[in-house]
Amino acid sequence: MTHEGFAVWLTGLSGAGKSTLAEGLVAHLREQGARVELLDGDIVRTNLSQGLGFSRADRDTNIRRIGFVTELLTRHGVIVIVAAISPYRDAREDVKQKIPNFIEVHVDCSIEVLTARDTKGLYKRALAGDLGNFTGISDPYETPLNPSLVIHSDRESVDEALAKIWRELEARKFVR
Amino acid sequence: MTHEGFAVWLTGLSGAGKSTLAEGLVAHLREQGARVELLDGDIVRTNLSQGLGFSRADRDTNIRRIGFVTELLTRHGVIVIVAAISPYRDAREDVKQKIPNFIEVHVDCSIEVLTARDTKGLYKRALAGDLGNFTGISDPYETPLNPSLVIHSDRESVDEALAKIWRELEARKFVR
Repeated sequence: MTHEGFAVWLTGLSGAGKSTLAEGLVAHLREQGARVELLDGDIVRTNLSQGLGFSRADRDTNIRRIGFVTELLTRHGVIVIVAAISPYRDAREDVKQKIPNFIEVHVDCSIEVLTARDTKGLYKRALAGDLGNFTGISDPYETPLNPSLVIHSDRESVDEALAKIWRELEARKFVR
Repeated sequence: MTHEGFAVWLTGLSGAGKSTLAEGLVAHLREQGARVELLDGDIVRTNLSQGLGFSRADRDTNIRRIGFVTELLTRHGVIVIVAAISPYRDAREDVKQKIPNFIEVHVDCSIEVLTARDTKGLYKRALAGDLGNFTGISDPYETPLNPSLVIHSDRESVDEALAKIWRELEARKFVR
């Protein structure tokens, strides 16, 4: 496939399914021969943001760095899929302004479902007060006001969600 | 022109001419329609490394971050020109290992000439003891042992230097 650079930015709480959707998208795009890069929040922290913590300022710095790299890659025709909690609206908006072909996908999932799943045991610890700065429990998540797309991962399957994102990419003519 | 991704990493003291050569290379490559990105140490510090200082650990972290971004871009076919003091051998070697098409260019200039030029007045301050961690004066510069190329900017003109780098790129078949 031929394509220009664009970014799909998946934002949402820990455990909501951002990485799963990102990996699904990347696999689908690679199959079609696209130039695609996955920037996963956790991995990026190791390479770009070691030493940063989870204060608002540090989280925003982390997001702006991911944004900087996303901007560089998309400018040169690469598709970038970002999976990062990105809890603060201002930082997300800053990034959005800088990248012409950009869709923001809010991966939404109720705290009840996240707490019930809790694959890493983090919600339990956060609810018990043992984990500070945990987004959604002991730290804010500013819900996107006008995302390109909302995925309700507590009631949509991964395949449904991927199909929905793909339709959005087609509608925007990011993929053909 | 068609090309694969590759990196030209310009290392050397402040004022040696890294940025001038980098800008010359970028201009020449852009004229030919290449996909090229300039990563200048100072600019990158703003976007990727704010908060880092000039200790050895912080400098190495900065270099590894530039290396990470260079790796991402070159992997997707972009030419990356890096102008960064990069004083420590280990960090440069780490980066070199990760990027298949890589040339290291040592932009060498004697301290005498740098001190005489001293366009930013930094050498004067460093020599007077007013500027700590200044590479070459109050902080070490580990000369590359086996660079792809050495430019002697105290006795080669910018045009000569650019021609020399270009011949190296042709010899490696990075440009055709």
